[in-house]
Amino acid sequence: MTAASLLFSCSIHVGVSHPKVAAKSSACCLLKQPWSHLMSKAPFGHSGILEKSKLSRKDDGILCSVGAVQVETAAPSFSLGQKFHLDDVIEAQQFDRETLNAIFEVARSMESIGSNSSGSQMLKGYLMATLFYEPSTRTRLSFESAMRRLGGDVLTTENAREFSSAAKGETLEDTIRTVEGYSDIIVMRHFESGAARRAAATASIPVINAGDGPGQHPTQALLDVYTIEREIGKLDGIKVGLVGDLANGRTVRSLAYLLAKYQGVKIYFVSPDVVNMKDDIKEYLTSKGVEWEESSDLMEVASKCDVVYQTRIQKERFGEKIDLYEAARGKYIVNQDVLKVMQKHAVVMHPLPRLDEITVDVDSDPRAAYFRQAKNGLYIRMALLKVLLLGW
Amino acid sequence: MTAASLLFSCSIHVGVSHPKVAAKSSACCLLKQPWSHLMSKAPFGHSGILEKSKLSRKDDGILCSVGAVQVETAAPSFSLGQKFHLDDVIEAQQFDRETLNAIFEVARSMESIGSNSSGSQMLKGYLMATLFYEPSTRTRLSFESAMRRLGGDVLTTENAREFSSAAKGETLEDTIRTVEGYSDIIVMRHFESGAARRAAATASIPVINAGDGPGQHPTQALLDVYTIEREIGKLDGIKVGLVGDLANGRTVRSLAYLLAKYQGVKIYFVSPDVVNMKDDIKEYLTSKGVEWEESSDLMEVASKCDVVYQTRIQKERFGEKIDLYEAARGKYIVNQDVLKVMQKHAVVMHPLPRLDEITVDVDSDPRAAYFRQAKNGLYIRMALLKVLLLGW
Amino acid sequence: MTAASLLFSCSIHVGVSHPKVAAKSSACCLLKQPWSHLMSKAPFGHSGILEKSKLSRKDDGILCSVGAVQVETAAPSFSLGQKFHLDDVIEAQQFDRETLNAIFEVARSMESIGSNSSGSQMLKGYLMATLFYEPSTRTRLSFESAMRRLGGDVLTTENAREFSSAAKGETLEDTIRTVEGYSDIIVMRHFESGAARRAAATASIPVINAGDGPGQHPTQALLDVYTIEREIGKLDGIKVGLVGDLANGRTVRSLAYLLAKYQGVKIYFVSPDVVNMKDDIKEYLTSKGVEWEESSDLMEVASKCDVVYQTRIQKERFGEKIDLYEAARGKYIVNQDVLKVMQKHAVVMHPLPRLDEITVDVDSDPRAAYFRQAKNGLYIRMALLKVLLLGW
Repeated sequence: MTAASLLFSCSIHVGVSHPKVAAKSSACCLLKQPWSHLMSKAPFGHSGILEKSKLSRKDDGILCSVGAVQVETAAPSFSLGQKFHLDDVIEAQQFDRETLNAIFEVARSMESIGSNSSGSQMLKGYLMATLFYEPSTRTRLSFESAMRRLGGDVLTTENAREFSSAAKGETLEDTIRTVEGYSDIIVMRHFESGAARRAAATASIPVINAGDGPGQHPTQALLDVYTIEREIGKLDGIKVGLVGDLANGRTVRSLAYLLAKYQGVKIYFVSPDVVNMKDDIKEYLTSKGVEWEESSDLMEVASKCDVVYQTRIQKERFGEKIDLYEAARGKYIVNQDVLKVMQKHAVVMHPLPRLDEITVDVDSDPRAAYFRQAKNGLYIRMALLKVLLLGW
Repeated sequence: MTAASLLFSCSIHVGVSHPKVAAKSSACCLLKQPWSHLMSKAPFGHSGILEKSKLSRKDDGILCSVGAVQVETAAPSFSLGQKFHLDDVIEAQQFDRETLNAIFEVARSMESIGSNSSGSQMLKGYLMATLFYEPSTRTRLSFESAMRRLGGDVLTTENAREFSSAAKGETLEDTIRTVEGYSDIIVMRHFESGAARRAAATASIPVINAGDGPGQHPTQALLDVYTIEREIGKLDGIKVGLVGDLANGRTVRSLAYLLAKYQGVKIYFVSPDVVNMKDDIKEYLTSKGVEWEESSDLMEVASKCDVVYQTRIQKERFGEKIDLYEAARGKYIVNQDVLKVMQKHAVVMHPLPRLDEITVDVDSDPRAAYFRQAKNGLYIRMALLKVLLLGW
Repeated sequence: MTAASLLFSCSIHVGVSHPKVAAKSSACCLLKQPWSHLMSKAPFGHSGILEKSKLSRKDDGILCSVGAVQVETAAPSFSLGQKFHLDDVIEAQQFDRETLNAIFEVARSMESIGSNSSGSQMLKGYLMATLFYEPSTRTRLSFESAMRRLGGDVLTTENAREFSSAAKGETLEDTIRTVEGYSDIIVMRHFESGAARRAAATASIPVINAGDGPGQHPTQALLDVYTIEREIGKLDGIKVGLVGDLANGRTVRSLAYLLAKYQGVKIYFVSPDVVNMKDDIKEYLTSKGVEWEESSDLMEVASKCDVVYQTRIQKERFGEKIDLYEAARGKYIVNQDVLKVMQKHAVVMHPLPRLDEITVDVDSDPRAAYFRQAKNGLYIRMALLKVLLLGW
């Protein structure tokens, strides 16, 4: 569908009795530069009055606060209501189970857009700013590919920390106010925990957190859960072995958090002693009734699990204690021996990059899911861009 | 409007009796890679014969040298003549008052393109090269957003100084000749004063100066004047207070220069002694009959002015004299007290980034115009790209 | 032609009796993300089984292995057969004379696309990843311009070595598997000889070598030969003087290699003693029956040659022996004196960047072909992108 016909097909719905569709239809046209223009002459809130500013934006944007509506192509099978309203993507915890399902359904529909057409023009005319205060080529390319696959355009800055006005002392808030004038959505990577939340509080356009320091990397968490569902076919009742650097990996921490939203999940922690899973996550899982245990026997865990989620031991966290790193690094390796004990339907996942914690000869096994997992990141990001810019 | 229909709507005008429209119509098709192709087998002039080359290009390009013509969408209310012919944007001084008005009128029309449509496809198929020899994320993103909002594409290089052949000793002229083969317009940021002029003299495609060293940054000057007109509603007879680092800020220098083109302007200089406005500008203003005075009383100036133009004290210019910097920095702050004495219709402007020379609580006042000012940069750049690539 | 109509014009050919055209027609639709999706759930081969993986891909992709077919627009005058099948562009040696001719014919057709239309939409919806492990702004911009001129989009990473997961120890193979999930074709620059071959062996999408260390830079070699043919009108029987740094320049080495594919070629080597052409190339030429001689008389060589191919003495190869460099640098300069003895139809070429080995006053002579040569790089790269993504 071309942009022209999309807009047209929207405009003919205006006045149709179904209120959600009608709302979406006009949104389709008005959301171009969603809120920034409606308020372009109005004073902007700052620090103290941020929440007010954010609220008044929602009040102004009736079309937006109407929230989730059905679109012809996605046609989700459940009733979308107010709770799916999505302004920004800041942390994994913000999603409830139903919102996750809704996102996964959109992601699923993106798989076909990505593969057997000449690309969608769904986001034609929309501009995404990738504002990266620290480099992350993998994540950046994934977001930029997602935007382009949907027909949108991209403004890139890969080293905002060094290059931008930040070096002259500009606040993140001021940078955001400038960049929001140039784009329709901001994808931000930052070195400070909480930066994404601050950006979202300031911005009048959607913000997606592409990782903020040791804090959150919510799209990685979403793609992990999406991959498990795609590979195993379910999330309730699954057994997941989290292996490797459980102390420092924000990936496994976020994943544990999200898995707690499902029923009958069992989690095994398999890690060298120096990088064991921290107590806060264990306590959280216990409080949510999620069964977990620690094990030092990778083979036994692998034989039981639906998912063996391997992670890289993060050398950069060991500083000068290279010997500790080397000891930790070699301890749990996913190789042919592990594959042999794994069940036929089970999969090996990894957030990448990997070093030698999964041997290369595992790659050719159908159960090696990590490159498919990386590809799923594309679909999840396409889905989020679509939902944030066009609604459900 | 798609590119196809745009070209079609142009081509049907060919032969229409109005000579300017007819000329523009064919230009519309031929200007794709405007002059480089017409001359692709011809020898290129160099240093000594640059002016000749530039002239012959104009001679060849009858369609271009016809100059300014009316287009349906812009429909400026004045008669556009030969003098609006615009090859390149090199310095603020190149614009006379009428050209400024014409650019502002195009910029005004860009505000609606930017906001309530799915973007224009006006520049579809055109390629802009952002050739930045020193990083300036803010300026680069503004230009790239402008190009994309008009449907054009972008080739980016953010660190041309370090990365490009310049490091191997290639002249700027040779780099320009290569890049002009790849693109339709060059936006250049350079660390040397005069670089933009040299690039423009070499290039057979339009060049926009996005700042060359301590020299010029003409699009900033244009957006400043445009903002004053948009906010105050006039330029003749306005009172402007220039505050802060008047010695080092090329912004305030260029602005003073441009304001001298209007009638009855009064300028107040308010700056710490170490960064007073230099004599050349004062003498220039005097020679043009512009009234100016220096003051150390920000409150009094603020109460009289239509525009309080605050600037950042540029720490990087003070070297090791940190104490001097700190003293200068704290001296004139725009805060609630200043707002209280300012007139209701007056505005606060700032080229950004700001540190604490405007307190954050000013942001929510409707008279805080600096983020709108940044946004106006987008419209000015859209206008310049449009005019340089498609004509008026 | 829009993407939509392209696809349509293809689909109406389905069922047409000519098997190659029919095959191509469906390929036209299926090739979007050519092989990655067909195999998206299949295990990927790795190191040991790379060749197998590559083969099975070709087996799966019947449409591709059918190979070269005629397209309406290009209409090459020769019969395209199996041998023109092109998966990747890795080294100059991979091309035989007929494939070169076929590529040049497509490149020729690109010249008109580049110049007098609003650009082609041939590659609309396709995404090229420029994966540069070392910066080369000139080459990168040329490829990115080529992709955009054909309507395609680009994912850029200019400093993959420093920024990407490579810094954390990820193998090139793993990086390629991730990036191939985000894009349809990879253009890679790498610091290690052989890296492009490894990338191509891993990738299920086409890979173009944009230079790998001291190894190959095949698109430069192609554009050089293309330029000679465009400027002189033939390749058989030409006389070429290779001048300057013949020891270190991979450009002249590749060019010598390719020229050996033509009949009756004569090559003159003119270089300072410290950077003479190495024996391997001389022996290769002799083995192929190509006449060559060394000369220290640039004037005499220039008077005989069709092409004087000047190169820069590469300072970076001399280390601290600055005196040797300075001596070598000044020895053979192409200036007005050389022009005077050159034949009227002859041309001066240079891979750029140039320092002073060609004086600036040569630029305005019609025989100065080096900026046209740079432009030809655009057409060659457009041609390769077109052929690799859409077939012949």
